[in-house]
Amino acid sequence: MQNQKRVVLENIRPQINQGTVFIKRVLDELVDVTADVLVDGHDKIQASILYKHQKEKVWREVRMHHVDNDGWAATFQVQKQGFYSYKLQGWVDDALNWQYGIGRKISDNQHVKSELLEGIEYLKPLLKEANKTEKKYLQHVISIFKSDEDYEKAIKEAISDQLETIFTKYPAKFLMNESQEFQVYVDRKKARFSTWYEFFPRSSSEDEGTHGTFKDCHRLLPRIAEMGFDTLYFPPVHPIGEVNRKGKNNTTEAEDGDVGSAWGIGSKQGGHKDIHPELGTVEDFKELVKAAKGLGIDVAMDYALQAAPDHPWVTEHPDWFKWRPDGTVQYAENPPKKYQDILPIYWESKDYKNLWKECLEILFYWIDCGIEVFRVDNPHTKPYYFWNWIITEVKKKHPNVLFLAEAFTKPKVMEQLAKQGYTQSYTYFTWRNTKHELIEYMKDLTKTDRKEYMRPNFWPNTPDINPYHLQGANESKYLQRYALAATLSSNIGIYGPVFEQMIDEAIPGKEEYYMSEKFQLCHYDWFQENKLTKLIGSINKIRHHHASYQQTNNIQFCHIENENLIAFYKWDDEKTDETLTVISLDPYYMQSGHVQLPMHELGIQQGQQVQVHDLITGNSYNWYDEWNYVELHPTLPFHIFKIKK
Amino acid sequence: MQNQKRVVLENIRPQINQGTVFIKRVLDELVDVTADVLVDGHDKIQASILYKHQKEKVWREVRMHHVDNDGWAATFQVQKQGFYSYKLQGWVDDALNWQYGIGRKISDNQHVKSELLEGIEYLKPLLKEANKTEKKYLQHVISIFKSDEDYEKAIKEAISDQLETIFTKYPAKFLMNESQEFQVYVDRKKARFSTWYEFFPRSSSEDEGTHGTFKDCHRLLPRIAEMGFDTLYFPPVHPIGEVNRKGKNNTTEAEDGDVGSAWGIGSKQGGHKDIHPELGTVEDFKELVKAAKGLGIDVAMDYALQAAPDHPWVTEHPDWFKWRPDGTVQYAENPPKKYQDILPIYWESKDYKNLWKECLEILFYWIDCGIEVFRVDNPHTKPYYFWNWIITEVKKKHPNVLFLAEAFTKPKVMEQLAKQGYTQSYTYFTWRNTKHELIEYMKDLTKTDRKEYMRPNFWPNTPDINPYHLQGANESKYLQRYALAATLSSNIGIYGPVFEQMIDEAIPGKEEYYMSEKFQLCHYDWFQENKLTKLIGSINKIRHHHASYQQTNNIQFCHIENENLIAFYKWDDEKTDETLTVISLDPYYMQSGHVQLPMHELGIQQGQQVQVHDLITGNSYNWYDEWNYVELHPTLPFHIFKIKK
Repeated sequence: MQNQKRVVLENIRPQINQGTVFIKRVLDELVDVTADVLVDGHDKIQASILYKHQKEKVWREVRMHHVDNDGWAATFQVQKQGFYSYKLQGWVDDALNWQYGIGRKISDNQHVKSELLEGIEYLKPLLKEANKTEKKYLQHVISIFKSDEDYEKAIKEAISDQLETIFTKYPAKFLMNESQEFQVYVDRKKARFSTWYEFFPRSSSEDEGTHGTFKDCHRLLPRIAEMGFDTLYFPPVHPIGEVNRKGKNNTTEAEDGDVGSAWGIGSKQGGHKDIHPELGTVEDFKELVKAAKGLGIDVAMDYALQAAPDHPWVTEHPDWFKWRPDGTVQYAENPPKKYQDILPIYWESKDYKNLWKECLEILFYWIDCGIEVFRVDNPHTKPYYFWNWIITEVKKKHPNVLFLAEAFTKPKVMEQLAKQGYTQSYTYFTWRNTKHELIEYMKDLTKTDRKEYMRPNFWPNTPDINPYHLQGANESKYLQRYALAATLSSNIGIYGPVFEQMIDEAIPGKEEYYMSEKFQLCHYDWFQENKLTKLIGSINKIRHHHASYQQTNNIQFCHIENENLIAFYKWDDEKTDETLTVISLDPYYMQSGHVQLPMHELGIQQGQQVQVHDLITGNSYNWYDEWNYVELHPTLPFHIFKIKK
Repeated sequence: MQNQKRVVLENIRPQINQGTVFIKRVLDELVDVTADVLVDGHDKIQASILYKHQKEKVWREVRMHHVDNDGWAATFQVQKQGFYSYKLQGWVDDALNWQYGIGRKISDNQHVKSELLEGIEYLKPLLKEANKTEKKYLQHVISIFKSDEDYEKAIKEAISDQLETIFTKYPAKFLMNESQEFQVYVDRKKARFSTWYEFFPRSSSEDEGTHGTFKDCHRLLPRIAEMGFDTLYFPPVHPIGEVNRKGKNNTTEAEDGDVGSAWGIGSKQGGHKDIHPELGTVEDFKELVKAAKGLGIDVAMDYALQAAPDHPWVTEHPDWFKWRPDGTVQYAENPPKKYQDILPIYWESKDYKNLWKECLEILFYWIDCGIEVFRVDNPHTKPYYFWNWIITEVKKKHPNVLFLAEAFTKPKVMEQLAKQGYTQSYTYFTWRNTKHELIEYMKDLTKTDRKEYMRPNFWPNTPDINPYHLQGANESKYLQRYALAATLSSNIGIYGPVFEQMIDEAIPGKEEYYMSEKFQLCHYDWFQENKLTKLIGSINKIRHHHASYQQTNNIQFCHIENENLIAFYKWDDEKTDETLTVISLDPYYMQSGHVQLPMHELGIQQGQQVQVHDLITGNSYNWYDEWNYVELHPTLPFHIFKIKK
């Protein structure tokens, strides 16, 4: 026989995979919870959210309010890093129910003496919890309810707001029902707002043909900081395998002097806990990390779980690799293709516990060297549940550490990695080019459940992807792509200096860089300044000062009757910052159109003046209408407007 | 440290309230299950649905097939009443993976001797499970894989379909992952297809002013059967309270001879397990139930958990009612309204266990008398979890028993009752009148999760609802409402004979019958025949012979460019029956338009002949186009077309 509980709590949101997957927030963000709360019959019900940080013992309570039909809602704020739990409670509120009923009868001029006596049953238990003033008041009410002389006074108090306030404050929670618990993981703010710059440290030398070092990288830090980047991501810095090393342009046979792929990790010089000797020492690396931090820059390390054939693991832990019946080791392959410079880890190894442990030790080692951001290479080729475990283990000790999942694959696979704990995810932005594609993709990311657990990071290019639309593109196109990434998404990154210097020669017919830096040293004029470097710097500065661009989810696209213009309104949770962004998607011609202001969201009426202030040019425009003319030229193909009311 | 499982199973549908609520089917129906099944990397995966009836010990297995992206699907059929469980399994299929890889390499002309040796590892374990023929084949394959001479033969067998079939038949299910279990409850077919007729047995007498009896009801059975009804629902047949009995037209003071409301249950004559003496004896009732069954009619009993003030429970179980501080009993009320002929049950009673038990005993008592269908009065004013318990308890012993929830209230409350186990639910159909309203409502019921757990029952009228659109309506309107109910929904009902005799005088301004039968005897000419009785009979006969009308969910609305014409295509699961229904919503004027045939669903091409055969008139039309002209007159405001290809 079941219990007597009467209140149903269901359709609780956010809720990912029946609550087995935690949602994500950053410090000081809000969690808006909604649910259906219902009871049989017509009784008054109440509901609460209870929440607490993992280190707290006592639940905090925030009362839910009725929204519509049987929908209820409430919001709580997360103020510490780590896990919070939350759950819902719902109960029949007999006291409020009594007050509602007696109120209706009093309005109907019924005699309610019997109801007053009933009311005493709800008042008495409150005496224990009430404070002094309340207690005095309650005793007074009880006495007049009992008395035969104070009927008029009694019915006045019975329906008083003061009594309602006390009832609401000390609910009896009779036959209370409670939901399962849900989890939210809270990161530091960088999880939501970060600006990445990727370069190959081995190309950092001033002298062409010379292998760059961490020491060379130091002189580049001020430039990166000045351009407004806060995360500096290096491809792997570990010893590069010498066996089956790749040659220039991804050839299978390296020639003498070829440096190989940085992702072919491990040689007689060491493995994942070592530094490639040509880059310097671990000490050099730590110094660079420290210097970067001094400029507000996190160095992000590449975490690539695979091994070159000469990685020390191959002899020390042969069980971590797959051996074939003919006694040879299993190279990476995607039949019929073979990748003979890489051995995949054998995740189904019986020795998997030691393998997992070592993978964790690698992270701890570099965290001790000052690393707090990892960009994980091809996470979708390693077991999902491994990621859940390792990310959880790291965050237990080091809640500041962030993980970016480098998976460009099927949507559900990318979502799964986010569900298993990744802080940020690479996205399809790199290939979303038309207005329709961009809007649909943004809606997918920000107007569905994905917004609760998947934080997009928008990259116009990467060493692996030289997108067709950038190959041979003009400066205006590059500006558009950077502006789109940087205003649509709060997490962004570029692979430089090829991006800002528009070095985009491709292998014909492929989205790959010709003579890719992945397989060779490159030489750059690191201090070249151009329109792109200047405007990237300006945009990054705007992002730094405008909270609406420091988040991704508060976005609403605005109507603009031109397929080559995209416009959107963004705001921060407190609406201290409201912006309107208009970007042209045409790199060759002027485009113009009328953009519709989101009047309702802005809380303004037709005819009311709004000033839009262009944060790039400093121009201001006064707008009085809902629809307003804008015109963009390839020379400066976007407006980033601060909205002033 | 977590396990090594690699396959993720998620987004499993159907799934109601995280699988805590069972879905519903009737005998022989299909359960279409879909899920996202994914793995890291590029390995081949497989997935199955395992299912079994509650009385079976061994799971049956049906293999899922890949649909798109990471979506998989499979279907199983339920063939016994009661609960089935189902769950999903997913695994990496190393053997198929091996076969896929070697196939790609062979196509690429690589030498695969090492891969053949690897293959033996996947073949050997199969010898244990394989049948004789397969075993012989496997041994042959192993030998040529090993041999150094049969390389050409070996690579032919390596990629053979025969080997793939054996691998697929005996999967190793390596590191298999399993989902939670889900439940489906299977009812007899009447749960999905039933045609109800409601009347008050006390109005069954031939003589005006005389209280009808069960004996009088016998002579009405053939008429009800001939009209095609299979469920005969009586308002409560228990002794009617004498204290505070209601008078005619819902007046609070009964006059001498007033019969009272049948829902005011209980008097000195007995309670919920007794028969109102003026209707006859329990034996009379049993005989009537039996006679009805002989004509294929289930008598549905009203289950109304409330008591008249003189119900025996009030003295025998005072704890089941709420007593006020002044010593009086709590009447039903919805402040400021009071209902002094009714005492609500006090569900929060400390003696609730005995109360629940007695409620169950009532059901068992009437089930023993031959009742297998209960129409439950106001279930939404009793605790949801009580229904879950009592319905489960009844169905454990009596799986044939069906429950219809009479709740006309907020949508989430009605849904909740269905979730707690009700077989069928009253609906808002009674008030859905325009084309837009009807289509939207049907989509809500049949194209959302509701279709999995909520079975609608469409009633054009009830003793409680004399809808505005029927008050003073003409015959055509009545025909339209019956045709709509009977073709849109497989479960329907009418309150007669007021419906088919168009007795619709209302209390002015209210949707209530004037001089309602709820509070008095009525006298009818029970054998009156008219156009309505004739066409109701014809429609019911069509429903009986056409499987597409025996279910509700397989419906697709067809475009027809006239707001007064509604058209829809229906089919049964096997597509042995396909129908097109066109109904006019205008009771006064001819309406015409072009209806679009669902070409794709019918599997026909433009220009291909389709014959539509009107099942009412016997007319046939040959259609060659996608859009076809139809014209409906108020005299016969619908087409019920059988589609013949």
